[in-house]
Amino acid sequence: MPMDTVAKPAIVTCTAPVNIAVVKYWGKRNEDLILPINSSLSVTLDQDQLKTTTTVASCRSFQEDRIWLNGKEEDINHPRLQSCLREIRRLARKRHNDRDCSVDMGCLSHKVHICSVNNFPTAAGLASSAAGFACLVYTLAQVYGVDGELSGIARQGSGSACRSMYGGFVQWIMGEREDGKDSVAQQVEPESHWPDLRVLVLVASAERKPVGSTSGMQTSVETSSLLKHRAKSVVPDRMKQMIEAVHKRDFDTFAELTMRDSNQFHATCLDTYPPIFYLNTVSRQVISLVHQYNRHYGEARVAYTFDAGPNAVIYTLQQHVAEFFHVVRHFFPPDNNGKKFLTGIQVEPVSISEELKNAVCLEPMPKGISYIISTKAGPGPHVLEDPSQHLLGADGLPKKNA
Amino acid sequence: MPMDTVAKPAIVTCTAPVNIAVVKYWGKRNEDLILPINSSLSVTLDQDQLKTTTTVASCRSFQEDRIWLNGKEEDINHPRLQSCLREIRRLARKRHNDRDCSVDMGCLSHKVHICSVNNFPTAAGLASSAAGFACLVYTLAQVYGVDGELSGIARQGSGSACRSMYGGFVQWIMGEREDGKDSVAQQVEPESHWPDLRVLVLVASAERKPVGSTSGMQTSVETSSLLKHRAKSVVPDRMKQMIEAVHKRDFDTFAELTMRDSNQFHATCLDTYPPIFYLNTVSRQVISLVHQYNRHYGEARVAYTFDAGPNAVIYTLQQHVAEFFHVVRHFFPPDNNGKKFLTGIQVEPVSISEELKNAVCLEPMPKGISYIISTKAGPGPHVLEDPSQHLLGADGLPKKNA
Repeated sequence: MPMDTVAKPAIVTCTAPVNIAVVKYWGKRNEDLILPINSSLSVTLDQDQLKTTTTVASCRSFQEDRIWLNGKEEDINHPRLQSCLREIRRLARKRHNDRDCSVDMGCLSHKVHICSVNNFPTAAGLASSAAGFACLVYTLAQVYGVDGELSGIARQGSGSACRSMYGGFVQWIMGEREDGKDSVAQQVEPESHWPDLRVLVLVASAERKPVGSTSGMQTSVETSSLLKHRAKSVVPDRMKQMIEAVHKRDFDTFAELTMRDSNQFHATCLDTYPPIFYLNTVSRQVISLVHQYNRHYGEARVAYTFDAGPNAVIYTLQQHVAEFFHVVRHFFPPDNNGKKFLTGIQVEPVSISEELKNAVCLEPMPKGISYIISTKAGPGPHVLEDPSQHLLGADGLPKKNA
Repeated sequence: MPMDTVAKPAIVTCTAPVNIAVVKYWGKRNEDLILPINSSLSVTLDQDQLKTTTTVASCRSFQEDRIWLNGKEEDINHPRLQSCLREIRRLARKRHNDRDCSVDMGCLSHKVHICSVNNFPTAAGLASSAAGFACLVYTLAQVYGVDGELSGIARQGSGSACRSMYGGFVQWIMGEREDGKDSVAQQVEPESHWPDLRVLVLVASAERKPVGSTSGMQTSVETSSLLKHRAKSVVPDRMKQMIEAVHKRDFDTFAELTMRDSNQFHATCLDTYPPIFYLNTVSRQVISLVHQYNRHYGEARVAYTFDAGPNAVIYTLQQHVAEFFHVVRHFFPPDNNGKKFLTGIQVEPVSISEELKNAVCLEPMPKGISYIISTKAGPGPHVLEDPSQHLLGADGLPKKNA
C-alpha cells in the first residue's frame, strides 16, 4: 500500500446474518474464552430480512480504535470487543509471519474505526450480538487479509456469533480443549439443502425487560442441576438426531426436537435459583396454539422455539406458512394503527376453516403479537462491493444516514 | 354387637387434614399401586382451617356400598375407591384371623354408606383428594376396628393421601418393593416441633382449568428426561437436607429447598412433551415478590411452593406473617365486593414502609389473588365423638345439611 501524503483509509463493508438455535446454547464452562457446556445447532436466517452491516476503516492517521453501533459511539474497551480485535490482529500477524509475506502489513499497526447497524429493532429480541460479532470479525478479517476458520474468534465476542459465520444449518461443536481451539462452528448443510423450510418471527409485546442471557446462564450453571444433566446426558444424543433430521429434511423429527429443546432450555431457567422466566403469557399461548394446530392435523406442521425472551420463532414448511400465519393473526388480532403486521416474505391470503378455529380453541389475545417477520434460511456473511454502502466516509466517520 | 330386629347402622365420623409438599411427588413407577419414582415430604395443615369430614355407616340392611361427596352421590365403582375399600376389608379380615378373635366381624360382610365433605372449595386447588382418601381410609379403619399402619392403603386412593395420615412433618418413603409394602408415610416431627411455622394459601384467580395431576405426571414420566434425573439424582439428597432442616427448625434452609423443589417440579412439567404449565402470571408475580422481599431483608423470610395449579402456598415464621400478608395485599389489591380477603388465623394490622414497597418493585395486579387462607401445621386424622356431627342419619342417608 503506497503511502500518500494525505492518509486515506482502507474501507471494507460486510453483512452478517442472525441465527436461531434449534438445539440451544445455555451455559459456559469458561467465561473468558466463551466455551459452552454443550454443543448447539442453529439455522442461519436470510439477510434479506435480518442482518447486521458493518464497515471497518483502517488508516495510519487514526488516533485510536473507535466504534459506532446503531448510530451511537460506544466504548471500544468492552472486553469482548477487545478479544475480537486482539485475536484477529494476532491471527493476521501469525499468517503474515508464517508466509514470510512481502505484502505490507503496516495496516496491522493502524487503528480502526468500526461502524455497525442492524436492519431490525433491538426490541425484536433477536440476539443482535450474534450477527454483530460475526459481522465485526468477518469484516476485520477482510481488512487484515485473513481467511479460513474465524468462528473461534467470533465465539469470543458472543458465543452464538460463531454460528452466524456460516449459512444454512450450523453446529457449534463444544470442543474439549482448555484453550478452546476446538470450540468452533461448522456448516451441517447449506441453506439450499432445504429450500421449503420457512421461518416466522413472532415479535411479542414484551411485558418487561428479561434477565440478560450472560448473567442468566451464569446463574443457571451455578444453581441448576437439571442444566448439568441436560448438557451432559441429553444434548449429545439430541445433536446427532437433529443433524440426521436436517440431512434427511425430516420436518417431523426436526420440529419435535426443536420444541422439546426449547422447552428443556426454559425448564433449566425455571430450575435456576432464583428462577428465570423468559416465556410470558403470549409465549405460552403460542405454544398452546402450535400444539393444538399440529394435533388437529395429526402431524407436526409447525414448531416453536424461544430464546432468552418472549418472542416465538416458528419453523414450518412452505406449504403451511400461509395458513399458519392467518391462524396466528386470528388468535392475536393485530393493532390496526398503521404499523404493518407482516414484514419480509409475503404470505398469500387464505381463509381458515371454522373447524380449525374450533380445534385450536384459544381465547383471542388482541395485540399480544406486535408484528411478524417472515423469512427463511440464508447464507453466511459476505462483502459488499459497492462503496456507496460503506457506513463510514473517507474521513473515517459515520456517514449522516448510518 | 347384638342383632336388633330393626338393623341400626354403626356410624363413625372422622376428619383428616390437607398436606402441602415441600419436596414434591411427581411421577409413578406403578400406576395401579400408586408407587412413586421418588420420596417426598410435606407439612400437614391445621384442620381448623382445612379439612375433610367423612362419615361411614355400616349396616346389614344396606343393599350396596354408596358414596356421597360434597352433597352429591358419586360412583362407588371408581377404581381407587374400590382399592381402598378392598384393602381395608382385607386387612380387617387378616387381623381378625390372626388374633383368632371372638369379636363378631359380621360387619365385614355389611355394605357401607360413605359421606364426605370438605370445608374448603375445590377451587382452592388444594388437592382435596389427599385429605379425602386419608379420611376415608381412617374412618373405614375405625368401623372395621383396624389400627396400625394405614398410610399404604391411603396411598392407593391417592398418592399424597398417605402423607395426610400423620400430623406435622411427614415423609413418604418411596420404597423399593414391587408390591409397594414399603411405600408408606412416616412422621418426621409432630406439629408441636415447630410452633412458629406459619402457612398462607394464596388462592389465585385461575385463568383456566389446568391439566389434571394424574395424567400430567404420566406424560412427564413418559417424556421428560429431566424428571428421571430429578427423581434419581436430586431428590434423595434433598430429602436428607430437608429432614435435617426440619429437625433443626432451620427456616433459611427449609425455605430455599422448598422454593428450589417447587421450581424444579414445574421445570419438569415444562420439559414434558407437550409441555404442561401450572404457573400463571399471578404465580410468577408471587415468585418475584417473594424473592424481592427476601432480598430486601438479606435472608429467606418467606418461601413459596406451587402444586399442580396456580395457587401459591407460602411458608413463613410467626414474626413475619403479618408484614408479608400486607405486602401481598398491597401488590394484589383485593376486590372489595364483600368477600373476605383473609380467612383463618387472624393477622394483625401493620404498615409497610415505602422502602419495602420500592424494594419489591412490582406493578400491582388488582384481583390477581381472590383470597388468602391463613393457617399453620396441624395434627393428623381423628375421630369426632359427638354423634351430632355425623353426616349420615340413622337411616344411613346424608343429613339435609351434609
